[in-house]
Amino acid sequence: MSLNPISAFTDVPLPEEALTRFFAEWQLEPQRELVALDSALGRCLFEDVRAPGDLPAFVRSTVDGYAVRAVDVAGASRAAPIVLRVIGEVPMGQEPQVAVLPGTAVKIHTGAMLPPGADGVIMVEWTSLRDDHHVIVTQRVASGGNSIARGEDVVAGQLLLTKGRRLRPDDIGGLAAIGLAQVPVARRPLVALISSGDELVPAYREPGPAEVRDINGALLAALVQEAGCIPWHLGISRDDPVQFRQLVHTALASADAVIVSGGSSVGTRDLTRAILEELPDSRIVVHGVAVRPGKPTLLAYVGKHPFFGLPGNPVSAFATFRLFVRPALGRFLGSMEEQRFTVRARLKRPIPPSDGREDYVQVRVFEDIGEIVAEPVLGKSNLIFTVVRANGVVRMPATVKGIPEGQMVDVWPY
Amino acid sequence: MSLNPISAFTDVPLPEEALTRFFAEWQLEPQRELVALDSALGRCLFEDVRAPGDLPAFVRSTVDGYAVRAVDVAGASRAAPIVLRVIGEVPMGQEPQVAVLPGTAVKIHTGAMLPPGADGVIMVEWTSLRDDHHVIVTQRVASGGNSIARGEDVVAGQLLLTKGRRLRPDDIGGLAAIGLAQVPVARRPLVALISSGDELVPAYREPGPAEVRDINGALLAALVQEAGCIPWHLGISRDDPVQFRQLVHTALASADAVIVSGGSSVGTRDLTRAILEELPDSRIVVHGVAVRPGKPTLLAYVGKHPFFGLPGNPVSAFATFRLFVRPALGRFLGSMEEQRFTVRARLKRPIPPSDGREDYVQVRVFEDIGEIVAEPVLGKSNLIFTVVRANGVVRMPATVKGIPEGQMVDVWPY
Repeated sequence: MSLNPISAFTDVPLPEEALTRFFAEWQLEPQRELVALDSALGRCLFEDVRAPGDLPAFVRSTVDGYAVRAVDVAGASRAAPIVLRVIGEVPMGQEPQVAVLPGTAVKIHTGAMLPPGADGVIMVEWTSLRDDHHVIVTQRVASGGNSIARGEDVVAGQLLLTKGRRLRPDDIGGLAAIGLAQVPVARRPLVALISSGDELVPAYREPGPAEVRDINGALLAALVQEAGCIPWHLGISRDDPVQFRQLVHTALASADAVIVSGGSSVGTRDLTRAILEELPDSRIVVHGVAVRPGKPTLLAYVGKHPFFGLPGNPVSAFATFRLFVRPALGRFLGSMEEQRFTVRARLKRPIPPSDGREDYVQVRVFEDIGEIVAEPVLGKSNLIFTVVRANGVVRMPATVKGIPEGQMVDVWPY
Repeated sequence: MSLNPISAFTDVPLPEEALTRFFAEWQLEPQRELVALDSALGRCLFEDVRAPGDLPAFVRSTVDGYAVRAVDVAGASRAAPIVLRVIGEVPMGQEPQVAVLPGTAVKIHTGAMLPPGADGVIMVEWTSLRDDHHVIVTQRVASGGNSIARGEDVVAGQLLLTKGRRLRPDDIGGLAAIGLAQVPVARRPLVALISSGDELVPAYREPGPAEVRDINGALLAALVQEAGCIPWHLGISRDDPVQFRQLVHTALASADAVIVSGGSSVGTRDLTRAILEELPDSRIVVHGVAVRPGKPTLLAYVGKHPFFGLPGNPVSAFATFRLFVRPALGRFLGSMEEQRFTVRARLKRPIPPSDGREDYVQVRVFEDIGEIVAEPVLGKSNLIFTVVRANGVVRMPATVKGIPEGQMVDVWPY
């Protein structure tokens, strides 16, 4: 019997390759649910949304003034004003009861429907009243001027929002515009969390000597929530196969996905792998990734359900969640890859070479004498407050052997 | 009697000056409430958080291996291995029961407490067992190596998170680390919304001819929610002083802030200003801002409560919310100005000169043949889907007379 664990993973892909292998076996589809429009912010659209009709549905004035025939005021100027007879007013929200005939004008407000015959609106600022029935116009207007055409925003059948779109406030406004009171979105998956380790106590308890509080439970729950899913923290498992197995079974009975943190490093204490291998329908796709932090990451399935073994160190758990779990949760939501933009910054301190792994370096980006700089936040991967002090991350590919001070780098902002 | 309204605002400050004037009269302070840690994501800290003790609270191993005295293995190498007697193992989460004496080692796991006498850890990869009681060490370790010192993450009393911080997932992890089970955050203000206009019908109703759906109710509710506050949509007021007054009174009786959209342009239909002027404790600070879109914006107080009159056009309402309302709601939350970074992009189409107003131009930023470009999204300010199609905004100061195609611009991403 050897006291020593197996000391190295046998097949350690780079992060991109690890994800590719994992997604090659993905089998779940987003599930549809309807939510009220006022609950749809941040949710992912389940299906494309098309315009049920033209918007606007009628020609609308964009100013307060007078609806006219453009041809009637073609020569109007301050020097050569033109007088039109005012034959009525368009009430807001109602169809005009009068038509604009040659030589006449109808008073109109912003947003009102243009009366028949009118093809433009003179802003009130360019008019004055000669008497109660006549207006003096001192500027011309082009045909279609100061108005919005029917369908100028969107036309019937037009694709408005694409399946997988994470709904922003302006999208909510757009859905109100087309009257979509119930919005088809992807159901939010329930994500079970288990923190593993004999040294852990719940965050609300005072740790004894040699004990530490469970950081990952709260951290991962917040990350799951931020990803648009529902966290379900089952608590802490001691390094005890019986208790751990029980929690994993509870998780699998109800959750759409399971995240275990801790207990996945290759070693005597590798409970996660052991419990997974007991389960008849489990498949470990990746165990060990060439990434720093996060080498002991485990990506697996139990049946169709994804099962993640993340490192116990909070900083590693944070980084590997972003790298592996978040994209996977995006599959539940059918979410499109969001277009994110990096911030270009000058590196304020060198990044040392990595050991053949892809390196994710926490940085603090700030403006320094008019220039955007990125300062690596140093610290070992157990130190949660190194992440708190950072506001972005620099990815150093495995092929790059360190980055010198002063070089420009692309930072992914948090 | 004149049918014509007053056609211009008398004092039209630029946006920054408008906000300065408005904030000069701000009187409200954030209010404290305690929330459970798992509900604190996205909330704003009410007060600074300091470390109640050192983190970690004890010296911890960062690897699996053997706790040793660094001096004992100072000469160890593959060529000259050193043999130590293994006198025990540190159980996870428990105080070591043995001390490391000269010539001895204690087996230890990642995260466990270093035993007395040890000042470094040899990674298991650099060891092999000679027999059940002796380990062969083939690498040296510096004093303090492969371990984290007490207080290496944070020391007792250290400022961890600053008042006003909007809590991120990693902050939640940090608060778990210090055991802050209940988090002091700023109470979220209740923000009443009133949409005004005879032409409006609720989003869930089919509009009649010349009617349109209330976009701003849903849009502003989502923006309020995104800003971390609680929206309360009171519905639509027709252009009727009696109904409008009733809704404003209802809003003021319970809400922390009131937003009216529509009804604030200077004109015969300027109900908002008229109702405000009836109220004995109202002060209109700004009415009319030199900004496009958003000129008719009204910034006021009723008592201590902010009261915003936003334009009825959804795009103007969106832009002025971001410019004026969001910073004001931030005051309720005591939120620090978030450091946001712009995206530098090449302008793909010229931006025409404005008319002495500060111009906010919606753009779509995308990568085009390896370059980040920004394409202005054209469209009149009534067209909500122009915002949906954009993903950022370019600010053109009032002093800048248009921006030519091909120029680099800074884009504020949505």
